[in-house]
This record gives sequence, structure tokens and C-alpha cells, in this order.
Amino acid sequence: MSTEVLDRLIIENDTKILFLILDGLGGLAMEGQGGTELQVARTPNLDNLASRSSCGLLTPIAPGITPGSGPGHFALFGFDPIKTNVGRGVQEAAGIGFPLQDKDVAARFNFATADKEGKIIDRRAGRISTEENKRICEKLRQNIRLNPEIKMFIETVREHRGVLVLRGEGLSGEIKDTDPQQIGLSPLDPVPIHPEAVKTAELVKEFIIQAKEVLAEEEKANALLLRGFAKNTGFSSMEERFGLEAVAIALYPMYKGIAHLLGMDVIPDLENINEQIEALKDNFDEFDFFFFHVKHTDSRGEDGNFIEKVKVIEEVDKLLPDILAPNFDVVVVTGDHSTPAKMAGHSWHELPLLISADICRVDPVAKFDEISCIQGVLGHLYTKDLMTLTLAHAKRLKKYGACRSLNHAELSGKNCGTTEKNRLS
Amino acid sequence: MSTEVLDRLIIENDTKILFLILDGLGGLAMEGQGGTELQVARTPNLDNLASRSSCGLLTPIAPGITPGSGPGHFALFGFDPIKTNVGRGVQEAAGIGFPLQDKDVAARFNFATADKEGKIIDRRAGRISTEENKRICEKLRQNIRLNPEIKMFIETVREHRGVLVLRGEGLSGEIKDTDPQQIGLSPLDPVPIHPEAVKTAELVKEFIIQAKEVLAEEEKANALLLRGFAKNTGFSSMEERFGLEAVAIALYPMYKGIAHLLGMDVIPDLENINEQIEALKDNFDEFDFFFFHVKHTDSRGEDGNFIEKVKVIEEVDKLLPDILAPNFDVVVVTGDHSTPAKMAGHSWHELPLLISADICRVDPVAKFDEISCIQGVLGHLYTKDLMTLTLAHAKRLKKYGACRSLNHAELSGKNCGTTEKNRLS
Repeated sequence: MSTEVLDRLIIENDTKILFLILDGLGGLAMEGQGGTELQVARTPNLDNLASRSSCGLLTPIAPGITPGSGPGHFALFGFDPIKTNVGRGVQEAAGIGFPLQDKDVAARFNFATADKEGKIIDRRAGRISTEENKRICEKLRQNIRLNPEIKMFIETVREHRGVLVLRGEGLSGEIKDTDPQQIGLSPLDPVPIHPEAVKTAELVKEFIIQAKEVLAEEEKANALLLRGFAKNTGFSSMEERFGLEAVAIALYPMYKGIAHLLGMDVIPDLENINEQIEALKDNFDEFDFFFFHVKHTDSRGEDGNFIEKVKVIEEVDKLLPDILAPNFDVVVVTGDHSTPAKMAGHSWHELPLLISADICRVDPVAKFDEISCIQGVLGHLYTKDLMTLTLAHAKRLKKYGACRSLNHAELSGKNCGTTEKNRLS
Repeated sequence: MSTEVLDRLIIENDTKILFLILDGLGGLAMEGQGGTELQVARTPNLDNLASRSSCGLLTPIAPGITPGSGPGHFALFGFDPIKTNVGRGVQEAAGIGFPLQDKDVAARFNFATADKEGKIIDRRAGRISTEENKRICEKLRQNIRLNPEIKMFIETVREHRGVLVLRGEGLSGEIKDTDPQQIGLSPLDPVPIHPEAVKTAELVKEFIIQAKEVLAEEEKANALLLRGFAKNTGFSSMEERFGLEAVAIALYPMYKGIAHLLGMDVIPDLENINEQIEALKDNFDEFDFFFFHVKHTDSRGEDGNFIEKVKVIEEVDKLLPDILAPNFDVVVVTGDHSTPAKMAGHSWHELPLLISADICRVDPVAKFDEISCIQGVLGHLYTKDLMTLTLAHAKRLKKYGACRSLNHAELSGKNCGTTEKNRLS
């Protein structure tokens, strides 16, 4: 649905929408386990909710395409993830709460250890502490001097990881990674992929040369590897796009960062899922849209740990009544992508989806898993269409291409509620 | 399927196609009713037909997008409803059989009652009679004089409703409604939405000023409210697009109007479904494609009357043998959008669909409703693709991308039958 069309259909009302996103939710059956992680998990609350919901399966990007966390979430929030791929540098900068401006170029970096010949012998510099990282970043800031028209920010993420942000006119993110991705090789040059990036690549090259000198005396962190160069092209907010006052209730920087990029409020300093649930209750009156992110389904999937991923799912299921306690008008439960323990990584497999609302069309699905959802009334959808479908269930979309008289409504004596508004559109 | 591609595939033959469109067919379960309207209705004939058909579910526009009647029907007739949104003025003009020309601009109007200060106190002028309407329209025609290069048509629809049509060079339909949509307010100015509409807006303003004078002495109809301005951009006919001689067998102006816009013949003066069935039989030899429209499924849904909508469905089911009696090669049964009684209005929920033909792939669906059709072999389709699928079942489409030598066929001594053609593709 194009932005222009959707813009004209948005209605604002006081409905409350919950997006419960279990990162990496989808899975695969593993030998001896008796099904996928979701099939094996005991999830009475999710199953009960599914039995009162519309169910289906989501394709995050396109058949066979495995999403990174960025595109997976952008699709959840109604962007076409092919057309709006956001570089990891931008995501990472936003993820640490760095106030990115439009047209900033950001890249992630690792501190690394190089041998005398400059070949990388540890891509993570022995996982130096975050404190070490901060000390070294400050040293870099003090000693590197680039073109004065360009502002440079060198920010600690944690351990060996950081973000470089460049601000100024005419910058481009079209630059290749300098991280050779394996040990025994020297860092690569920052090669421009596009002619418009030549100037920026020169600037990064200068940065790397100076950084090398500054880091020369460091024992572990004597090299820098840059990757994920990206320009912040700016995004319309959830408010601008959908008329939703949105809030992110997430623990991890990346997801907070994406939410920040999309103009959501981000609840700071949450430490665990219980605090997330508290934050959900405390902020219920203030917002329309609640992005509640659970990370550990993905983490245990990435670990290849089937049993532990099952446990995370079961924990969330146990907490589901608390999560739903504020009484949302629309509840969506799904994930951003699959992370089958069997693959110990992200995958393209579809995600189970449920949408619960008083005007959802209830189907016979009574168990929330990848196989049961095949019988769902929503069928197979692209994730990018989920947001529109959600708005519809929240009665936040007018009728498309209609403009008729009120005769009928007035005759039947109805007042001008949401249904009536639809008729007026 | 793009027009250019489809154009090259069309075959004309003598197959007969029935589109049985139950307006607003899709529904939702309502408390205490035991299912959706279609699930609750006793429909032995539809169920029997479904058991010999290919079934599926149609998305009229896009997930979550609720169609007005116009886009819903344009999609049924193979248009992309997003790319071809037709203004209501154009639909209404066509609906009363007004011979719209290309580039005409049409708007719907209501006669209304204003108080001394010009504020609207009745948006329908006390529902004046159609005769009154005709008298006042004639008075307007006699007394309003616009720019002589512009032809003006003022046409009665019925009761308080009419259509204004403007014909001339350089007109635009990009004008805001003057109907304030509620009483206690004055009519709005006809504001141009696009610079190209400035001239037309001036013209409409002049029309409104003169109309106000003409209507000043009327007791009830002393004001005019205009809405749904739209330019007739012209449409290729069903004959041009699909090689189909098409006829509409419908009772309501809007659907006859859409059929007229798309170059279908329209059987006039039908009063009820029995006359529609007669017309179907009487015209069977003359046409290839029969658009048979049933309105009351939608009307009872809009009323929020679950039981009555069930009854309409059951009535159609009883008449189904008569409707099918002429023996069509392809029968399609579906709707233009859902109108769940629970919502008392249109909705985005998918429509059940069946396609019956001797070469349809029969699936296990043996009951024609929204839930059973989940199991259908057609899966989830966009309505805009239904027409192509229908033509295929009528053997009216050539193979795509087939243009190779006959060697193989010639060598094996076979003639160019269908199987052979497939092999050559």
C-alpha cells in the first residue's frame, strides 16, 4: 500500500495496539525433539489467544530471503524492507541512543589486534572491557584531526565495539567494509562503491591512518575494523505515517535504536522482562502503539540451543496474562524472522502470526505454532502488510474509494462512531 | 498481469461466463450466532457447487484495506483498484445512465435546507420527492448561465440526490467537497486540491452562487451540497480488454453505472431477482460474460442485521439452480468486499470464492464459507487477478511465452493439440 494512498485513510482514535515481537520466533523441528521449538513448548496462554484470533504466516522479506534484524523490524513497522534497507552503522548509532541527524554517515567498528605486519590476529582485541573501550575512544577523539568541515564522533558501544559517525555536506555511505572478516589478513581499504562516495572514502582513509598511529602503543586494541557504512536518510515517524503515538519497550540497543529512528519513544534503562511489563502498564495511557520486544528467543536460537529456546517461549507464555493485562484493543504476536536452533542463525522461514481483536475473523487455529498457523484465515502475508492489517483491526483506516451519502446511516438512527466514520469516508 | 501482456494472450471463443456477485458477502461470527453469516446460512446448493469447484479467498484491495463499492467492483473486472480509483461523481453519473464523455467532470449533489444565515439544518432537504427534484433541476437548468464554452448538465438521481456534469476543455475533478458533512455549518467553498483545478473550482463557485439565487424561494431545497468531484478518464471496455461481450444484470444504479463505464450492456428496468434470472435466460445467447449482482447481502450487513443477511444468502441459494440453468462454462461466485453484520459496514476481510468449470482443480472444500475456503486450492488471491483466472478457466487465454519451432511435434508426427502445445512452450 503506497504511502499516498494510506495517508488519506488514516483515522486517529483511542484504540491501543500491542506488538509482542518474539525475536527469531520461528523454528524448525530437530531430531528427537518432536517438533519445532514452538510446537514443543507448552504455551497454554498463547494457544488460548490463538484460538480467539486470526492466524497466519508471515514472510519477512521475500521467499527464501533471510532478514537481518533491521529489515525484519522495518517490515514489521510497515516499510518495504527491500526499498528501505538501513545500514547497520545507522542502526548501531541509533541503538546506543546517539542523536543521529539526517545525512549523517555511520559505521560500526571493532577494536582488533594486529601483528607487527599489520595482519589481524584477533578481530575483537581480546574482547577488551567497555571501560577500556571508552578510554581508547577518548584518546582517538583527542588526537585525530580531520577536515574541519566534517564533524567526527567516535562512540563506545560495548566491549570491543564502537560507532563512527561523520557529519557534513556531501557525505555518502557507499563504502566497502574494511573488516576482512578473517584473521591473518590486513584491514582492507575503505573502497567507494559509488562515485559519490569518493570524498567520504578519502576521509575514512585519513581517519584510519591517524587512528593507526594513535593506537600503535595499545597492547590489544592496536587496530580498527570498520563495517556497515550507511547514511541516515531519515524516516517519517509512526505518528506521521500512521497517526500512532508509539513507544518501544525493549532491552537491547539495536531495537531501541530502530524504534528511535522511527520516531518512537523509547523507555530507557529496562533490565528484564518484568521491568518491561511494568513499563507497559505504567505507559499504557500515554501511547497508542506498544512495541514489546523479547530478545532471548533469538539469542537461544543463535546458540543452537533448542531446549533453552523452548524455555524462553514458555517463560513468555507464562507472563502473557500480565503482558495483556492492560487490555489492548488489538494484540499482534509474531517475530521479525525465524532463528531455528537447528540452524543456529537467522533464516527465511515464515513466522507464525496472530492478530486478536473484537473484529478479527476467528479461524480454527487453536495452537500457536508454525504448522498450526497454516490453517489460519490470514494465509501467507508479507510482513510489510502487517501494519496496515493491524490498523484495520484497530478501526484506524477509512474505507478506500468511497464517498456516499448518509441516507442509510441516518435512517437506521446510528450515531457517528467508527463505523459511521467509515461510511462517511 | 499487465494489459500489454494480457492483450497478446486473449482468445475469443463461445464459452459463457457467469459472475455471481453477492455484494458484501463476507462476514464475521457474532456472539450467539454460531459462525459467520455464510457459516450459519443453510446453503445446500452453494455447498454442492463448492464441492465441485476450486475455492479460495479474495483480498479486494490489499490486506487491511476496506473497499468502497467502486474499487471492489473494478477489481472484480480486472483493474488494479489502487491505480484506477474512480470518483463517486463519475460512478453516480454512469449509474443513472447519463452518457458521460471522456474528460467530463461529475459531482454528486444533495438538495439541502439552510437557515437564514446559510447554515445547513437538513442535509437532505426533508427528502423531497423525486418529482420535486426534477422540477427544481429544470428550474436550475433554465436559470443558471455559466461560461458558454462549458456545457452543464443537472440531473436528478432520486429524492434529494442529483448529479452535476461539466463538459469542456481543461476541466479537473481535483476539487474538495462543499458538503460540510454535518448540520449547523455552512456549505464549504469548492477548493481546488491541485493547481490544474483552479479554473474548474471557479466555475463551480459561480454555479453555486447562481444556484443559491435560483433556490432562494424554495421552502426545503434552498441549498446545494456537492461532493465526489471526479473526471471521467475513460476506460477500455470488457470487449477491448478481454474480448468479452459483457452484460450487467443488476438492480441498483451504482452497479449498472460501473458496468456502463466498462462498456457492458446493461439490462434496464429490472425490479427484482426473479426478473434478473429471467433476463439471464433471455440474454444467454447474446453475450459471453454475465455480471449478476445481488445487493441485499450488503444492505442487510450494513443494517447490522445478521439474521436478515443469512436469509438473503439462503434465498439466493434456493434460486441458484435457476440462476445456473442456462448452463455456463465458468461460474464464479464471490463478493466485492465483506460487510459483516457485526460491523454494520464494509470491511477488509477476505471474500470466499469459488470457480466452477470443467477444467477447475477440485479441492476438498464442500461448504461455501469464509473458513472452509481456507482449504481451497486457489489459496489467497487479490481480486484484481480473478478476471485472468476466470478467462483461463474459459479457455480464453493463450499460453504465455510460447513461440518455438515445431520440430519436435513434426518429428513425432503429432498434430498441434493442447498437450503438444504445452510441451512446446
